[in-house]
Amino acid sequence: MKALVFEGPGRTSWRDAPDPEVKDAADAIVRGDTVTICGTDLHIIKGDVPEVTPGRILGHEAVGEVMEVGAEVRTVRPGDRVLISCISPCGRCRFCRGNRYGQCQGGGGWVLGHLIDGTQAEYVRVPFADLSLHPLTSAVDGADAVLLADILPTAYEVGVVNGQVKPGDTVVIVGAGPIGLATVATARLCTPERIIAVDLAESRLTAARAMGADATVLSTEDPERLVADLTDGLGADVAIEAVGLPETFDLCTRMVRPGGRVANIGVHGKPATLHLEDLWIKDVTITTGLVDTFSTPLLLRMTAAGKIPLTSLVTHRFELDQMEEAYDVFSRAADTGAMKVVLGGTPHDTVLPAN
Amino acid sequence: MKALVFEGPGRTSWRDAPDPEVKDAADAIVRGDTVTICGTDLHIIKGDVPEVTPGRILGHEAVGEVMEVGAEVRTVRPGDRVLISCISPCGRCRFCRGNRYGQCQGGGGWVLGHLIDGTQAEYVRVPFADLSLHPLTSAVDGADAVLLADILPTAYEVGVVNGQVKPGDTVVIVGAGPIGLATVATARLCTPERIIAVDLAESRLTAARAMGADATVLSTEDPERLVADLTDGLGADVAIEAVGLPETFDLCTRMVRPGGRVANIGVHGKPATLHLEDLWIKDVTITTGLVDTFSTPLLLRMTAAGKIPLTSLVTHRFELDQMEEAYDVFSRAADTGAMKVVLGGTPHDTVLPAN
Repeated sequence: MKALVFEGPGRTSWRDAPDPEVKDAADAIVRGDTVTICGTDLHIIKGDVPEVTPGRILGHEAVGEVMEVGAEVRTVRPGDRVLISCISPCGRCRFCRGNRYGQCQGGGGWVLGHLIDGTQAEYVRVPFADLSLHPLTSAVDGADAVLLADILPTAYEVGVVNGQVKPGDTVVIVGAGPIGLATVATARLCTPERIIAVDLAESRLTAARAMGADATVLSTEDPERLVADLTDGLGADVAIEAVGLPETFDLCTRMVRPGGRVANIGVHGKPATLHLEDLWIKDVTITTGLVDTFSTPLLLRMTAAGKIPLTSLVTHRFELDQMEEAYDVFSRAADTGAMKVVLGGTPHDTVLPAN
Repeated sequence: MKALVFEGPGRTSWRDAPDPEVKDAADAIVRGDTVTICGTDLHIIKGDVPEVTPGRILGHEAVGEVMEVGAEVRTVRPGDRVLISCISPCGRCRFCRGNRYGQCQGGGGWVLGHLIDGTQAEYVRVPFADLSLHPLTSAVDGADAVLLADILPTAYEVGVVNGQVKPGDTVVIVGAGPIGLATVATARLCTPERIIAVDLAESRLTAARAMGADATVLSTEDPERLVADLTDGLGADVAIEAVGLPETFDLCTRMVRPGGRVANIGVHGKPATLHLEDLWIKDVTITTGLVDTFSTPLLLRMTAAGKIPLTSLVTHRFELDQMEEAYDVFSRAADTGAMKVVLGGTPHDTVLPAN
């Protein structure tokens, strides 16, 4: 088969790789026909994730068809259309029993395209298939469904659920990239009074309004002041960090009201300064997290019910064998305006090609 | 009357001051007969709390007898024995309606010995008396009761409740001063599997064991290793910061397991470094807070029921007019071994004088 292989820092190739085989009775082999690329993949290629070794097939998000299953697999069978979740939970360890699948200690968790070969290939071996695969119906498939492999549950669980977004809240979301926009879309499920999006780029704020943000503000135009003005000087109930920089994290801690919540989604490479000299007295809750994907079935149902608008998220479409071109467009997002790029697609696909 | 007056940074005096009077229909005048000193008072004297102006009577913890009440006061009457809480909630603002009395925006909150004259005096005017005073019975009074003015609810609410201590948890408490020891005592109400106390001083670790800590470790003897050894390498479920330094806060974030909670109680004067490059993926919840005293009635009942051991907390007793001597002993705790110093006392007092 063909696959996108990490060849060492700065290098990948779309090349021949051995077809995967069932190795464990809980495995499934899936033929992926709709695949996407994550910001995390770019971090891996830069060499920021040292446990990914040369020769690894990348990718942890895909939709496809089950080709073969191991003897213990009960919930899917060959021919089923499925979403491959970015998290593969063993289902048996202490963390999986507590729904913390992302922290799985039983050999699962985030393994695809990380510790084992991933989804940016024609075929992929998916471990713990009963919990890692989500059966799809024609209601949600293709480019819609592949957004539920990672960014939708990440935005919802690590941003909205951890941030305890409630009806009537003022929610400020810093960063209007794919994860920030997915946070706007899923925060709406909890009916806050208002969602305020903050970003450096006007084009991303336009996308945020299209996803349902009530107000937007450029990072350079004093978002702290806007949030204060909208909240009688108190600050937001919830501030969600969707960038991954010390400065944007700090901004979130300054925009939140006494008793408010700061939910960090961003992947950070450096420490931040935590102004405890101001915050110790402020009753603030700060959360971090890796997605668990416990919400994936719920989000599939809500997408099928038309409650989550997804169309603004996919900006570029490619065929699967255009993987290197897709990476190029995605990695130059500031120039290309790329949000999510989707490779492949199915007849069920309801998202209109944007490019 | 006599009172302990802040005369400007570095200076206080025990001197004559005007008797307080009812100024508002919700006020009560209390004759304090059992008073204590808080670490926060030492911060004020150093000049760290600039909103405290010269001439202010210090103190926010006392037990005494109601002498007079304003026309609107309904829950106490002259002659009642009462605990004066460190927080005086207006009861009407958004924050008070949510039990966040410490964040009161209606003119209350922490005001005694801060924005208005405090309790280190023969008489004190207590605003919003219906919610600020807690009637006492002979079951808990004097030096026992005065510990419930601040440190017990602070330890319980900001440490144990915010940290979500649950049966079976491993709880590590960094700092075994008065607040740390009160945290040991109140964490036990939630029946963790084990409480581990960390401090620089062996004498404080001895006190922590007397309060119910299951294990203790000097800060210099690799507490991270001990916690890892006791938890199969995972880390503590809850780490509680009861010091107020960047280093001890950082230690807490390193000792907590994936999915665990760090509850900050310490009063910080400097920023800390938050290692988001490690923590972003770790599902950690960090909380800060000022006490609300919503738990004071509960803690009074539990103390009366003998469920909270308090005796190790009071190390020194003085008469009320020995205020300056008491401050001297308390401020030199490293030499004197002082934990809580109590001035005055009543016939109901069940704590044995330790010195």
